[in-house]
Amino acid sequence: MAKLLEASAVRKQITRNLKARCKLLKEKSVTPFLKVILVGSDPASIVYTKNKKKYCEKVGALCEIVELPESTSEDVFMRTINDINHDKLVHGCIIQLPLPSHLQHLDVGVLINKNKDVDGFHPENLYALLKNRNLDNDLVSCTPKGILSLLKGYEIEIAGKDVVVIGRSMIVGKPLALLLLNGNATVTMTHSHTHNLKEITKKADIIICALGKAKFLDISFLNSSKSQIIIDVGMNNDEIGNLCGDVDFESVFDHVAAITPVPGGVGPMTIVSLVQNLLQAAEKELSI
Amino acid sequence: MAKLLEASAVRKQITRNLKARCKLLKEKSVTPFLKVILVGSDPASIVYTKNKKKYCEKVGALCEIVELPESTSEDVFMRTINDINHDKLVHGCIIQLPLPSHLQHLDVGVLINKNKDVDGFHPENLYALLKNRNLDNDLVSCTPKGILSLLKGYEIEIAGKDVVVIGRSMIVGKPLALLLLNGNATVTMTHSHTHNLKEITKKADIIICALGKAKFLDISFLNSSKSQIIIDVGMNNDEIGNLCGDVDFESVFDHVAAITPVPGGVGPMTIVSLVQNLLQAAEKELSI
Repeated sequence: MAKLLEASAVRKQITRNLKARCKLLKEKSVTPFLKVILVGSDPASIVYTKNKKKYCEKVGALCEIVELPESTSEDVFMRTINDINHDKLVHGCIIQLPLPSHLQHLDVGVLINKNKDVDGFHPENLYALLKNRNLDNDLVSCTPKGILSLLKGYEIEIAGKDVVVIGRSMIVGKPLALLLLNGNATVTMTHSHTHNLKEITKKADIIICALGKAKFLDISFLNSSKSQIIIDVGMNNDEIGNLCGDVDFESVFDHVAAITPVPGGVGPMTIVSLVQNLLQAAEKELSI
Repeated sequence: MAKLLEASAVRKQITRNLKARCKLLKEKSVTPFLKVILVGSDPASIVYTKNKKKYCEKVGALCEIVELPESTSEDVFMRTINDINHDKLVHGCIIQLPLPSHLQHLDVGVLINKNKDVDGFHPENLYALLKNRNLDNDLVSCTPKGILSLLKGYEIEIAGKDVVVIGRSMIVGKPLALLLLNGNATVTMTHSHTHNLKEITKKADIIICALGKAKFLDISFLNSSKSQIIIDVGMNNDEIGNLCGDVDFESVFDHVAAITPVPGGVGPMTIVSLVQNLLQAAEKELSI
């Protein structure tokens, strides 16, 4: 039977650490403060932002959701960000995605000041990943960072392992591949143009699914060793509207060594990373 | 028998194009101007810089080798770069590597102004690769760009192909992996911690060797199909001091579909890319 890689156990320990760090910051009169810019009223985005706020408050940080109407002009949107970039009380800012279509041409990676970019999307933060720089000084993309924390929490080694990443987005696939590479994994980056995906996944020690297709990965992608590990980054709705991942969980569960559940796996770890980044940003300000 | 992927044929056509573009620029009173900063007197570096100057002049561009003594202080080195960054007559600048040990702590990627960074090492130019942005507007790392030009010149498709990159440097391995990914290849990034490298290379359609070990890749890394393609980025000396690549050319030649020679393969293509970048930078200045 597969081991369930739940966030809860790992998260508990990290939360204790974050609470202690937050307390220390407050004793020095610094209250970590996150602003989340939410444009429009996408139901999933509302849930995600609420969860982020809730976890901030759990560890003792401040979080304000800056709600802007769907029709917000580019000018107002940019001014809102600019004000936050210059607000000395704010340590971190994220733009909840997706943006409405009239704002989607903007490169969100460059909008937030790199020192407040707790999502880790800024070119300089991505450059740090490419350089394999000391990442305590840079802000690492939240979902990739959360996946590595989860693996570490369950003492799953990545050095020397064959890891297959399915999906090549700027938010997950690409920064994740770099982070795994820095951890000395052998990384194969696959995507919609990969013609022999099943052959590739069958060779993998760890398979990370981040392509956004409900129940895409099933038993036909696995070998018979039952030693493979699956990380499911997907957050989709299945045909009857239930939340599900990119992995057909029921199909693969008895055929792998370990797997993340959806919900309760990668999702909560992403929020943990976000607040780790927020505290790192606040601590950095203090040290300057 | 394997096809020899020589730079000369591809280079000839690109050179014609570069000459025409250079002529056009000069008619508009812009003479593309490259400065190459050479610190010390490493014999290989002297040869490389001379070759770069020679090719610049062949297409009609200016090139000055700024020779600094081995003992140059960090202060003088930085002032030299700063002057070049502000010199409106200079369109491109590169720092010949390796630097003497007392300058090696510097992150050369951020020293040259991004618009003059014709080596493509600047964070913003690497970010463009990550984003898969319109690369006509950004400066792409020379060796990776040259490899793609060579493959294109020989009509070797990369989309959907399994490409294995051996080596993960900031100059070749990592930007190359991103460029291949943007071209829809399935890319596996391997390195010194990869434990089953031969198993991985045997599955590849294209193997790119950029690890800097003389004659590392031999027939034992290949499958028996004789359909694999090898790109050799290495520039090493063998046991008797002769120039050789990362591939044991004699050993593999009869067992592959195509292979680059060393010298005469990737090396000359790197210089072509450099001058393509220089002209792109000069043309951009004109359009502003």
